[in-house]
Amino acid sequence: MGVILGQNQYGKAECRVVRIVRDTPRHEIVDLNVTTSLRGDFAAAHISGDQSQVLPTDTQKNTAFAYAKEHGVGSIETYALALGRRLLVATPAATSARVLVEQYAWDRVDDGTDGGHDHAFVRRGGETRTCEVVLTRDDATPPTVTCGLRDLVVLKSTGSAFKGFLVDEYTTLPETDDRILATSLVARWRHAGDGVAEQTDEQWNASYDGVRRTMLSTFAATFSRALQETLYAMGRATIEQHPTVAEIGFSAPNKHHFLVDLAPFGLENPGEVFVAADRPYGLIEATVLRSDLATLNEAPEAEARRL
Amino acid sequence: MGVILGQNQYGKAECRVVRIVRDTPRHEIVDLNVTTSLRGDFAAAHISGDQSQVLPTDTQKNTAFAYAKEHGVGSIETYALALGRRLLVATPAATSARVLVEQYAWDRVDDGTDGGHDHAFVRRGGETRTCEVVLTRDDATPPTVTCGLRDLVVLKSTGSAFKGFLVDEYTTLPETDDRILATSLVARWRHAGDGVAEQTDEQWNASYDGVRRTMLSTFAATFSRALQETLYAMGRATIEQHPTVAEIGFSAPNKHHFLVDLAPFGLENPGEVFVAADRPYGLIEATVLRSDLATLNEAPEAEARRL
Amino acid sequence: MGVILGQNQYGKAECRVVRIVRDTPRHEIVDLNVTTSLRGDFAAAHISGDQSQVLPTDTQKNTAFAYAKEHGVGSIETYALALGRRLLVATPAATSARVLVEQYAWDRVDDGTDGGHDHAFVRRGGETRTCEVVLTRDDATPPTVTCGLRDLVVLKSTGSAFKGFLVDEYTTLPETDDRILATSLVARWRHAGDGVAEQTDEQWNASYDGVRRTMLSTFAATFSRALQETLYAMGRATIEQHPTVAEIGFSAPNKHHFLVDLAPFGLENPGEVFVAADRPYGLIEATVLRSDLATLNEAPEAEARRL
Amino acid sequence: MGVILGQNQYGKAECRVVRIVRDTPRHEIVDLNVTTSLRGDFAAAHISGDQSQVLPTDTQKNTAFAYAKEHGVGSIETYALALGRRLLVATPAATSARVLVEQYAWDRVDDGTDGGHDHAFVRRGGETRTCEVVLTRDDATPPTVTCGLRDLVVLKSTGSAFKGFLVDEYTTLPETDDRILATSLVARWRHAGDGVAEQTDEQWNASYDGVRRTMLSTFAATFSRALQETLYAMGRATIEQHPTVAEIGFSAPNKHHFLVDLAPFGLENPGEVFVAADRPYGLIEATVLRSDLATLNEAPEAEARRL
Repeated sequence: MGVILGQNQYGKAECRVVRIVRDTPRHEIVDLNVTTSLRGDFAAAHISGDQSQVLPTDTQKNTAFAYAKEHGVGSIETYALALGRRLLVATPAATSARVLVEQYAWDRVDDGTDGGHDHAFVRRGGETRTCEVVLTRDDATPPTVTCGLRDLVVLKSTGSAFKGFLVDEYTTLPETDDRILATSLVARWRHAGDGVAEQTDEQWNASYDGVRRTMLSTFAATFSRALQETLYAMGRATIEQHPTVAEIGFSAPNKHHFLVDLAPFGLENPGEVFVAADRPYGLIEATVLRSDLATLNEAPEAEARRL
Repeated sequence: MGVILGQNQYGKAECRVVRIVRDTPRHEIVDLNVTTSLRGDFAAAHISGDQSQVLPTDTQKNTAFAYAKEHGVGSIETYALALGRRLLVATPAATSARVLVEQYAWDRVDDGTDGGHDHAFVRRGGETRTCEVVLTRDDATPPTVTCGLRDLVVLKSTGSAFKGFLVDEYTTLPETDDRILATSLVARWRHAGDGVAEQTDEQWNASYDGVRRTMLSTFAATFSRALQETLYAMGRATIEQHPTVAEIGFSAPNKHHFLVDLAPFGLENPGEVFVAADRPYGLIEATVLRSDLATLNEAPEAEARRL
Repeated sequence: MGVILGQNQYGKAECRVVRIVRDTPRHEIVDLNVTTSLRGDFAAAHISGDQSQVLPTDTQKNTAFAYAKEHGVGSIETYALALGRRLLVATPAATSARVLVEQYAWDRVDDGTDGGHDHAFVRRGGETRTCEVVLTRDDATPPTVTCGLRDLVVLKSTGSAFKGFLVDEYTTLPETDDRILATSLVARWRHAGDGVAEQTDEQWNASYDGVRRTMLSTFAATFSRALQETLYAMGRATIEQHPTVAEIGFSAPNKHHFLVDLAPFGLENPGEVFVAADRPYGLIEATVLRSDLATLNEAPEAEARRL
Repeated sequence: MGVILGQNQYGKAECRVVRIVRDTPRHEIVDLNVTTSLRGDFAAAHISGDQSQVLPTDTQKNTAFAYAKEHGVGSIETYALALGRRLLVATPAATSARVLVEQYAWDRVDDGTDGGHDHAFVRRGGETRTCEVVLTRDDATPPTVTCGLRDLVVLKSTGSAFKGFLVDEYTTLPETDDRILATSLVARWRHAGDGVAEQTDEQWNASYDGVRRTMLSTFAATFSRALQETLYAMGRATIEQHPTVAEIGFSAPNKHHFLVDLAPFGLENPGEVFVAADRPYGLIEATVLRSDLATLNEAPEAEARRL
């Protein structure tokens, strides 16, 4: 009987890189959580303990911090691409490098001046912007750039129904014409096409803002007959309105808000008082694809790089 | 030898009450986490298992939801006061009731229309607004109303030093003229004075916004020689600018951002690249008081109700 | 341009099912977190809002609770298989069902009696046992059963080195002959072979205990020249000692323990005082495979079901 | 109008100190989370930014690590007392020092040898042991030593009722003769009496084990007519069986386990299938006191040091 090493990867997770841009008295802050990992031929490290081809995760961390200075972080996408390229250069045994970056947004403190304070900031909260890039040594294969966000919590207080569903002997859920629909959205959208990896910081940042806006306004405008339908509509709008987006995937917990029965207290409750439940929750996951990927020069093997 | 029952209290924690105001097509959402507790003579419940004086925590929960309908939630302060009064009425053995409310803010989805969407919302993130009220049966003692917030994460990228500190044989910290100062603020401020408990929803909401603004603008404007000095300045400004605030307490982790040594890589790092550390963290706690509490008709026993 | 629905699934996540076996005064407790999901042809639900083929997630939850009574939970594996089969029967549009179960262990309270108290329990803490089953409608394809655990926190205070690694211009890590090695292990092992899905509860429970024991004793006995080597050794031993395990995958954060420099205080520190760091952490992931899967009647398409 | 500084304290929180005892090949591990804080006259630091009396929190951290070597950690109580004394010595402006220590338990890996492996450990999980000491400069006042634990999750599957409670118009809860009782216990017990602060490591460790055992066996043996009664019984037994314990305080969430209605599926559910709820939860807090504190030489002002 034999034993073989299967898929493996290693890297440094959650480097909390904070970059202050202070070229002028009006500072900027970029607040990141950076994770890197490498795949390739690292069999010797596993089987015989030979580390000679292993770039330490400590070095990956050092590089993440150094690149925040050397390359800067005009956008998380260009930073991640630069960092990933460097890790491939530094590690001959690696066949691919993956860099995942999360960005926490900050606003200037509103001190009454125009545009806010020069160097005092308040963390925005709300969703976290993310990107994942995967680079290989194959020049013919452009890097995969998947932008995204997580923890975008949205809610509709009406304009949502759920009925006409399949019923079996374990079904007790009543149909409803009007309910709260709420989710904490994770979305990831992959860009493809000529020149995508060469986009400027301004393009990446504008693209992120645009996709976020598309998703939110579609969420708001769509009557929902299920969270599935809402996600599909959001995905469809994103692909239709953003030409470089090849696919978009959602993971969306259905954060249940149950109408509270106030009748025992002699009170009516026409959609006014709800309890926000923790667990269990529905979990809806869906991917929406551009059907004409060929227009983006997307080769069939892209399948393997699906979200 | 004898054993006696000491201080005790009981209640229901973390009722997730969501109230939709839908009197017009332009809905409002109020999203709360409500905790109630009662103190009084509940010795029989502890010692002999006699529950006849115990209002079940399940009933306290029911009341929290029912009052979101009956009383509404124009502000968390008036809602908490009403709920607390009811619990005292319902529980003869209780000598005091405490209600703690947290409120999560939501914004309307920006769909391009003026003021945003009618019934689609996105959770704002950032700080959580809090209030705690304590009511007794003593008509001469007005309720204690302590407003607050938590998780207000603020950062200054300059304008902060730390030097001239006490040095002993375990001290290795170098002095610095310029560092990042960051904290995740918990603040609680107690209102006092005639008529405070009778304030309107509009007054409570405006007061909260005002204190938050005072704290933020003071944080921004103050050169910091230690987090202690910053907190005191924030407290002082709050008391000076808000006449009904009798005291304010802060709990502030010093969220360390350490300058990364990039010299091994031939790079300078003049305050540009930092690592945001998790643990350990400094923890600074301070209370600032109005010295002329008499002007608020605050009796000496107020001491016992200090934050 | 066209838009198409890609991969999708839906279900109920984190049903907290607690089953008390009380056929005799000596009770048993089984404490679970159950997640179910379905894949199949649910395009209509996404595209036109037609829910007629959608078994509600609420029904999936009901079924999870009902099956804790109807089928019982002698082992999480047989329970998950039964639940998954039922969901396929109930949902004609589903092509596969996935059931993920986590189990929290409890011990009897030691009250001095032999074997502990009849109906008082204390939660054990430590690792969580997991299993994931995937069932399809294809009778020729046996269900996939992947057992596992998470949060198994292990540490070696010596017997670990890290040296001879690749060095580049961003490398500052010194080599070490002796360090602490610690991780919080996630491991998942897939069983394969004739009759695996027909194993009894006793067999599943004994198998879990055996694999856990193999991993721990290998961790302890192996000198580690990197976490990679330790994981591979643990995987190899598992496959060699457990004939139905076809593959095993690990996700292991390298929980760094840094030696504290006590020299400024005139103290030596020969591997005695460490700081346990939070972030960043190394993250090592590896899969170890049985090379002669044919002996398990594993078809080539098993590749697609890899961990 | 005037503003004055009120109560304040500062220190370093959550130093993750890991101490390996390696005097022989059979290593020991002590895994701690240490928080220190100082109170005293630190007005200048707050008001004028003068840090000359402020021992940096970084120095407090250094001392915590150095004392793990210099003093060792035979028990968290003696370590905390030594660390607190040192901080008072180092900080003339401090009038009191508080040290809070949490300890995470580890077991030796069972590798089949007698007593387990020499230097491989697995984290036990379950409850965390805690202690808090407060020291002042007043030689007549012995240090306060409060031992404790948190996250001790216990459950009774029968032997618990809840009935005969107060009913008002918001009450819907039915009475029950048989329910699950479960909590995640936080308990803190203060020792008092001559020589308590001079106890040996062995005495502290034995005392902790003894109190834990008393609480668990009382929990198991007591029929519960409310969580309040159970806590009081646990407190009473602790005080009766442990002569140096002056008082004990509990904070106990009532972790509700609701019986699932299986009748719609034609199934009976005689206390067999429950859903473990997250929020809301009852929260019961109680303190039990020794009435003859005088026998412990406890002065009246001890009141001020109550839990």
